[in-house]
Amino acid sequence: MDPLSTLSSIFERFPGIGPRQAFRFVQFLLRHPAVRRELADALSRLGSSVHQCPQCRRFHAGAHALCNLCTNPVRDDTTLAIVAHDADVLALERSGTFRGRYFVLGGLISLSSERAPHLAFDELKRLQNEKRFAEIILAFPVNPEGDTTALKVREVLGELGVRLTMLGRGLSTGSELEYADPETLKTALENRR
Amino acid sequence: MDPLSTLSSIFERFPGIGPRQAFRFVQFLLRHPAVRRELADALSRLGSSVHQCPQCRRFHAGAHALCNLCTNPVRDDTTLAIVAHDADVLALERSGTFRGRYFVLGGLISLSSERAPHLAFDELKRLQNEKRFAEIILAFPVNPEGDTTALKVREVLGELGVRLTMLGRGLSTGSELEYADPETLKTALENRR
Amino acid sequence: MDPLSTLSSIFERFPGIGPRQAFRFVQFLLRHPAVRRELADALSRLGSSVHQCPQCRRFHAGAHALCNLCTNPVRDDTTLAIVAHDADVLALERSGTFRGRYFVLGGLISLSSERAPHLAFDELKRLQNEKRFAEIILAFPVNPEGDTTALKVREVLGELGVRLTMLGRGLSTGSELEYADPETLKTALENRR
Amino acid sequence: MDPLSTLSSIFERFPGIGPRQAFRFVQFLLRHPAVRRELADALSRLGSSVHQCPQCRRFHAGAHALCNLCTNPVRDDTTLAIVAHDADVLALERSGTFRGRYFVLGGLISLSSERAPHLAFDELKRLQNEKRFAEIILAFPVNPEGDTTALKVREVLGELGVRLTMLGRGLSTGSELEYADPETLKTALENRR
Repeated sequence: MDPLSTLSSIFERFPGIGPRQAFRFVQFLLRHPAVRRELADALSRLGSSVHQCPQCRRFHAGAHALCNLCTNPVRDDTTLAIVAHDADVLALERSGTFRGRYFVLGGLISLSSERAPHLAFDELKRLQNEKRFAEIILAFPVNPEGDTTALKVREVLGELGVRLTMLGRGLSTGSELEYADPETLKTALENRR
Repeated sequence: MDPLSTLSSIFERFPGIGPRQAFRFVQFLLRHPAVRRELADALSRLGSSVHQCPQCRRFHAGAHALCNLCTNPVRDDTTLAIVAHDADVLALERSGTFRGRYFVLGGLISLSSERAPHLAFDELKRLQNEKRFAEIILAFPVNPEGDTTALKVREVLGELGVRLTMLGRGLSTGSELEYADPETLKTALENRR
Repeated sequence: MDPLSTLSSIFERFPGIGPRQAFRFVQFLLRHPAVRRELADALSRLGSSVHQCPQCRRFHAGAHALCNLCTNPVRDDTTLAIVAHDADVLALERSGTFRGRYFVLGGLISLSSERAPHLAFDELKRLQNEKRFAEIILAFPVNPEGDTTALKVREVLGELGVRLTMLGRGLSTGSELEYADPETLKTALENRR
Repeated sequence: MDPLSTLSSIFERFPGIGPRQAFRFVQFLLRHPAVRRELADALSRLGSSVHQCPQCRRFHAGAHALCNLCTNPVRDDTTLAIVAHDADVLALERSGTFRGRYFVLGGLISLSSERAPHLAFDELKRLQNEKRFAEIILAFPVNPEGDTTALKVREVLGELGVRLTMLGRGLSTGSELEYADPETLKTALENRR
């Protein structure tokens, strides 16, 4: 495959990028050798300076092995939120409610089983053994992959006697009954309070 | 105002219809006198056969004064869901979970205060006095109008000693943490279980 | 069929309206008897005051039989634009370029042949015989129905020795080559100037 | 700036990419070191094997200096299409109408004047002097930047006595008069034929 097609096919694997936009990225890089060089440099720097926090498994570029959330002394050590992706940590932080610790599983169990990511179940079990959290929140998306992953985490952690919770389900901000799907209305009715 | 503009301005008051589509409706009716006549007939039939259920305040075309949900003997008489619109009754029925009775308020308290609909607070109070429900679910949309209306219903019913609940809030079907708004993540964390 | 369903099915025939929005219109009219009455009145006034211009076949509510464009003495009598719909007259007027006369065919030849509208070919021929325009512009949409209708108009008018033109085709305002369809680029190349 | 933010800011300069998607790209690359390496390799290969055709200024990875369109012996040597971007060449080829030669200017004159790309006006003039095309088509997008660039090309080439044309403007495939902008209808009327 010629270099342009190779580069295009790599961009097609980026999240949300189709053939047409991948092609435009290649055209853009052809016209901008400086961006090309900066990108190559940034990739190389990324490889050498970014590392995974050995505790929460987030990627970060901090000076220490542990990330700034894991070393923060005022966070609540009794609660752990397990999430799929690094981006979910940022989303929960934005909501300004959760003050506990995090653990990034590295993805969700794939129901199509192709390109299944390695998920950090062993590391999770070890962490729970060390830390003995009082509550572990399974903070996964509301879809079949999220539910399957939650089931697996319960299985892995089940015997440890920790309280396992899931994020509340129901109507989200802005929801109108008329446009809500029946499953959401069902959980909204079940979780009424 | 000429008849075309008058008709157009009436269609502009229809939900979700702007000037351009209102104009297209008028053009459509100009070209289709048969539809025009059918519409006039249907409006006249609607006026004479549809009536409001005196209990739940839904509009229906049944043979009796009470609607088919109010006369259904197997519904649960201890629970009442208060909704804003007739369409919300259908939405909750589609979810297949709720088996109680309904009450249609006729709208929501408008925060802009223009075109405030008449809401059936008096009728609601009378119904609760007669029926003595054990639980009343405030099934309103998750937005400022819904919250304001819920507050007002609590005020109206507060002294009656009935248990008032609201639909559960949190992540709806298909939600991913990364794209959820902070407010929804906040309630999802608070309502975890 | 009960009156609600009848009314809903009529609204579903309106341009661009699906079952869900038709249902919302019915709910809206149920809750707003005043709008219902105004709509019925407007429909009845429409029937009695609006009429079709015998020359251009536009619908209008003017005091005279002929519409204000047909009676306008400063329009160019040598050029005629044939359009499908009344709305196309307004669109061409908005562009501020055309100063000739109009003729509304009443629709396009339907390729699916269901609900074929009656098209005013006979009236068009008569008009051309009376008026002897120097140029007739076939101002139809750029789609198979528009092209088929243009073909038929040519057939009807062919022997009259008038110059028949079509609206120019090519790149429209804002078009970028990368996103233009091949057919449009083809005509843009052919019609370069 | 830390390596993650640096990488994110580079992706934000990609066409059509905002901060959120740039961040997701970084997360994706963090989780997929293999893709990171492939991307670095592809960028390096691109730098060494891709080059600009000295005649039409397209980027290509062919074995020769000239690209396959410039060396194609059956193309028409009397006509030249000047385009802004490499992607425009592909768009015109897809339309299957144009058989002449190309010249890629490298962008459009920017009206906001920030990040103005270097445009190959000198090379264009030299090419025209050498080749003496009978017609040069200014195949630019229909927007202010396209029009300004066309004006500048006319200025640069004006004294050469070559016939300069522009892509035809008017209704594009699928256009309906009702939804066409007034400017497009104006050119469609002017370019009628």
